[in-house]
Amino acid sequence: MSHLEALTAYTAAFVAELVKAGVEDVIISPGSRSTPLAMMMAEHPDLKIRIHVDERSAAFFALGIAKASEKPTVLLCTSGTAAANYYPAVIEAKYARVPLIVLTADRPHELRDVGAPQAIDQIHLYGKNVKWFVEMALPENSQDMIRYARTVCTRAVTVASRTPAGPVHLNFPFREPLIPDLERENLFELTERPHGCMNIHTGILSLQAEDAETIATELNNYEKGLIICGPIEDCTLTEKIVELADALQYPIIADPLSQMRSGKHCGEKIVTSYDTFLKNEKAQKLLKPEVIIRFGEMPTSKALLFFLKKHRSIRQFIIDGGGGWRDPSGTGTDMVCCDEKAFCQSITNYLVVKNSTKWLNKWLEIDAVTQRGLLQINQQSSLSEGKLFSLLAKILPNHSTLFVGNSMPIRDLDTFFHFNNKSIRIMGNRGANGIDGIVSTALGAATVSEPLYLIVGDLTFFHDLNGLLAAKLYNINIKIILINNNGGGIFSFLPQSKHAANFEKLFGTPLNLDFQQVVNMYGGKYTYISDWDHFNDAFQQAVEYSGLSVLEIPTNRNENLMEHRTLWNNVSQEISATIAGEIK
Amino acid sequence: MSHLEALTAYTAAFVAELVKAGVEDVIISPGSRSTPLAMMMAEHPDLKIRIHVDERSAAFFALGIAKASEKPTVLLCTSGTAAANYYPAVIEAKYARVPLIVLTADRPHELRDVGAPQAIDQIHLYGKNVKWFVEMALPENSQDMIRYARTVCTRAVTVASRTPAGPVHLNFPFREPLIPDLERENLFELTERPHGCMNIHTGILSLQAEDAETIATELNNYEKGLIICGPIEDCTLTEKIVELADALQYPIIADPLSQMRSGKHCGEKIVTSYDTFLKNEKAQKLLKPEVIIRFGEMPTSKALLFFLKKHRSIRQFIIDGGGGWRDPSGTGTDMVCCDEKAFCQSITNYLVVKNSTKWLNKWLEIDAVTQRGLLQINQQSSLSEGKLFSLLAKILPNHSTLFVGNSMPIRDLDTFFHFNNKSIRIMGNRGANGIDGIVSTALGAATVSEPLYLIVGDLTFFHDLNGLLAAKLYNINIKIILINNNGGGIFSFLPQSKHAANFEKLFGTPLNLDFQQVVNMYGGKYTYISDWDHFNDAFQQAVEYSGLSVLEIPTNRNENLMEHRTLWNNVSQEISATIAGEIK
Repeated sequence: MSHLEALTAYTAAFVAELVKAGVEDVIISPGSRSTPLAMMMAEHPDLKIRIHVDERSAAFFALGIAKASEKPTVLLCTSGTAAANYYPAVIEAKYARVPLIVLTADRPHELRDVGAPQAIDQIHLYGKNVKWFVEMALPENSQDMIRYARTVCTRAVTVASRTPAGPVHLNFPFREPLIPDLERENLFELTERPHGCMNIHTGILSLQAEDAETIATELNNYEKGLIICGPIEDCTLTEKIVELADALQYPIIADPLSQMRSGKHCGEKIVTSYDTFLKNEKAQKLLKPEVIIRFGEMPTSKALLFFLKKHRSIRQFIIDGGGGWRDPSGTGTDMVCCDEKAFCQSITNYLVVKNSTKWLNKWLEIDAVTQRGLLQINQQSSLSEGKLFSLLAKILPNHSTLFVGNSMPIRDLDTFFHFNNKSIRIMGNRGANGIDGIVSTALGAATVSEPLYLIVGDLTFFHDLNGLLAAKLYNINIKIILINNNGGGIFSFLPQSKHAANFEKLFGTPLNLDFQQVVNMYGGKYTYISDWDHFNDAFQQAVEYSGLSVLEIPTNRNENLMEHRTLWNNVSQEISATIAGEIK
Repeated sequence: MSHLEALTAYTAAFVAELVKAGVEDVIISPGSRSTPLAMMMAEHPDLKIRIHVDERSAAFFALGIAKASEKPTVLLCTSGTAAANYYPAVIEAKYARVPLIVLTADRPHELRDVGAPQAIDQIHLYGKNVKWFVEMALPENSQDMIRYARTVCTRAVTVASRTPAGPVHLNFPFREPLIPDLERENLFELTERPHGCMNIHTGILSLQAEDAETIATELNNYEKGLIICGPIEDCTLTEKIVELADALQYPIIADPLSQMRSGKHCGEKIVTSYDTFLKNEKAQKLLKPEVIIRFGEMPTSKALLFFLKKHRSIRQFIIDGGGGWRDPSGTGTDMVCCDEKAFCQSITNYLVVKNSTKWLNKWLEIDAVTQRGLLQINQQSSLSEGKLFSLLAKILPNHSTLFVGNSMPIRDLDTFFHFNNKSIRIMGNRGANGIDGIVSTALGAATVSEPLYLIVGDLTFFHDLNGLLAAKLYNINIKIILINNNGGGIFSFLPQSKHAANFEKLFGTPLNLDFQQVVNMYGGKYTYISDWDHFNDAFQQAVEYSGLSVLEIPTNRNENLMEHRTLWNNVSQEISATIAGEIK
């Protein structure tokens, strides 16, 4: 059996199986050793191939596609440090539970650890950060080895997709010559089991009936309960949680990434301004619950975290179908490893619908007072980060996706973006909360969820400038709102800011970059916003424009800090007054 | 003992010891968890702190400083994916044997694997790619723990520096609050052992006398020998190798990164055009040696590699003081784990100086013919990649450093850059040969070895555009010659180029970027070269300019391929003619 036949049959079978297993998108970074798979993939009519020269951006781009489509996306690169550039996105995929299939080409065994060029040790390159690693066999054309390649392929897709989803890594050694025979007839025809080599049936974690009944019975006894929803990707969970809340008459604390702050549901139990009112000590006391049911990751709000830690004795159920241990506050009392929808359904069966809305209304009233107070930000006549986020719910078109950067943007979104009846999907990278790869993740998501609006600060934008290449090459429709406060805005809110000596050098880190030029380089439409009227006009133009547009909003870190502090103080006084009235 | 005292004493002792151990340069990427070390380092008068927002570029920048200064350089970042961005440079440091000390801040144990933000598993984050990993203890102020922090620090510096040098990784868990007490008196005073906690004495690998004598005796018997020098960082080795060659009357095959193609030594045995003449079959036969002595990594030349593989039976000594296994051709017969200088010295003691120069002259004659033939490239009137490299030895100022990109530039340098008596240091990233991080590595090197000239292609330049931020922030003097052939030039030389269907999409990958704008953004001086006169003027201006200047030379991938092929064919005919004359 010739080398050429083996290379061709083995890679063709793998690629054909990839498609059968449901993969649609492949991001390839150019290289030589990966040639057999790259050429084979480009030949398959059902794969969408995109090229990205910078592997770090490529990996985040693939992450964005996988997040938005909820389908495993494939990455392919050559041997050497190329593969190491995937690491940040692989780690984000692990913690954010996103299905990624990382294919790396490698030198064959005889060229490893002997000083051959571009040969590094790629075995377990990503350590424990992938769910599965396979060192693939060298290409062979026997029936057994074709079956092997197909089986590993379908297993990789399944393992990546199975809850909790995550990255897998297959390392392919290839010997030269690297060119497969693309002229072979019926290249992608699978003779054995043509519809896919294996059907895979995966169960879901479900509570035993008696377990569900026990929990429900306890919940029936608690009047003062809270449902807390952190970042949740699955939009279909919303309805189930709302039903649960309806039965329990508990308010729903909804993180901006919970997919519950927007939507067709009535939203009457959704509480969104807790990060502000839970800073108030009187509110912390008044609103102490007896029980908490938590879904999703821990919410972004630090005030909520402190609230939980203050009331450590509260019964707290943490529901996680992914079997994780989502309890950074160390306050959980019951870890429920169960599919979230299955949990809601099986519990609701045993609940006695509560009639009293006293507890619920207390939360809703303070939430309403707080939201009204926060709306004062809209009186701000100069450009302001807070006001920008406050405007979003109004100005974002229905059925749009909002991707939000880490650090300040997600926190401002938490403070200023409240419930609305639009259908707005909100995404972020909250697995490891890095500022890296945000531009690329958003661009990847934008290829699936269009139109997409990205809000980022200048450091985050800078970190992944290379990501913009995809916007140019693939004419992606994305509207970027770039908040430029010339440095790391979040540090002004931290204790570091009190130490003036090296603060600007170590934390403020102003870059003084004129981003217009780089946006031009990538063929984008750039607008430097001068005031709110200008912003409104430019935003409307961006809405109507299809392609890359960047609206840069200049702000000032110190003014931003003062604005937030003043607003929080004012609102806190209003909250105290309301509570005083209530207690009186 | 208070938290503040422990945090302060522990980090101050670590930082003070770092300086005692010889560290001068620290590259910090901004973040919160790393605050204790960042603030402490910024306070130390003897540390040079530079900030780089993009950790990937930061790590390559540190790599460049460490390479150029041959001193361990420190990296510091916060927890999470920030640390993962160091991975490509860490791997390059491993394979290129560069001392890097990677310090990552981490969440304390109770916040790990419980869904806390920016908390990833940082234990052994870089796997086997670091020489040493330490999970540091939490800060304490006891005498024992201060001693511990200092000992780990000095061990880290030693382990990173010891042959073969490489990266080490220390992971520091820190609890909040994170601000140390910088007002403490005598912050960096070390009460115990004030001059450093430990003196470290490291021996060097040396051959036993009888071993050296045996090898020398054999070499005395071989008339036809070759000394092959691959990439070697240590400039002081040159002299020893030249002495060895003088005694043996063997030619020295000198890779462009061997530090032997330029220099004060007479260069009379240096052969540099072998990549061209070893493509010629007649030359391969005529020049078959009996013995080979290899130093450094395997040279870049593929023709040389094939030459070695063709003559597998030749006795081949591979000298490596780092104890590696540098034999990608699988042709070595003797692995000599011995310090290279010590080897030369101890062998030379037993050598009988040879008188016959017949063998040597055969090599030198063909080298001369080949070099003359290659000089035809200078008749090229249009902009040409080959001619550019051919001009370099002439136009580069004495005492300058040339940093060369991977892929095509290093190969063109190999073909067209021959022996000269200037003092020109040539650097590249040949550990893993990636196109990533080249701009940053060169910028780091430029802070030590000035003036520095970087030659890169457009894909390599694009990959690390973010690296240019350092040039702006620290006003680094670097002259970048950007060869823009709009894509991956090297692929045109590979078999992939014969498959037109997806070639441009998968391998050619034109970016169509106007780099002028991004160079402007970073405050650089940009020139788009129109012809050779323009190049000469612009180059002179760049020589005189102190700061970032970029000369972009537009070339064409297909024309470049044809130019190389035609030239090689012509030269090969001249070589054949010379050999025919000789044999006759």
